[in-house]
Amino acid sequence: MTPIPADYHDLLIAPNTAVFTTLLADGSPNSSPVWFWFDGEAVTISTLTERTKHRSVQRDPRVSLTVVDPDRPLRYLEIRGTVEITEDPEGELRDRIAAKHGHDDGAAFDPPDASRVNLHLTPTRIIEH
Amino acid sequence: MTPIPADYHDLLIAPNTAVFTTLLADGSPNSSPVWFWFDGEAVTISTLTERTKHRSVQRDPRVSLTVVDPDRPLRYLEIRGTVEITEDPEGELRDRIAAKHGHDDGAAFDPPDASRVNLHLTPTRIIEH
Repeated sequence: MTPIPADYHDLLIAPNTAVFTTLLADGSPNSSPVWFWFDGEAVTISTLTERTKHRSVQRDPRVSLTVVDPDRPLRYLEIRGTVEITEDPEGELRDRIAAKHGHDDGAAFDPPDASRVNLHLTPTRIIEH
Repeated sequence: MTPIPADYHDLLIAPNTAVFTTLLADGSPNSSPVWFWFDGEAVTISTLTERTKHRSVQRDPRVSLTVVDPDRPLRYLEIRGTVEITEDPEGELRDRIAAKHGHDDGAAFDPPDASRVNLHLTPTRIIEH
């Protein structure tokens, strides 16, 4: 696995909002802001099974995640790679990510009967700038 | 052309940094932060001919541009569409965009002998959230 350079870990540890890109059925790109978890090595996103991004990565696991330094917009990290999907029925990762961003109640983000999955990002190419 | 909703124009008028996604030769997504110009109707990006994003849109014009509200990260605008490329030998748009972000000298961003092109975005789908 391509390691994430240590001098960009600050962008992943801080409660920043990333832009996450997946591929639609016709191969065109689709992006949206996401919060994420960084364990010191890898990045993981929590999403709902009903979301377009989940359907997209089931079909094509190739993604890109970009985090821009809010204080220096010319400094950024792009992680290109693929995702593996695991289930998170209790929303454990959702709750951890919500807490990172100052929200006590992660479940408040979900509609009733929502089903959470985690998207584990394996980098294939990292751009640091 | 799909119009950009008026209640999201503020995100485009303010000197925000967007994330712009193009498709690499193998169809995988490639994103980077960009500044842009908004004339009240359409969004245009200035880039260098040598940049990957320019080569990518020459091959496949399908792109996505995402602007997240820096004050409310759950509020964002995604513009999906295609780009048309025009030449900008004097860097006129580069200078306008640099001034929008408080930089007097747009040319200072360019290496010697750089060649500027403008990427005009035609929206096909707009997500407002």
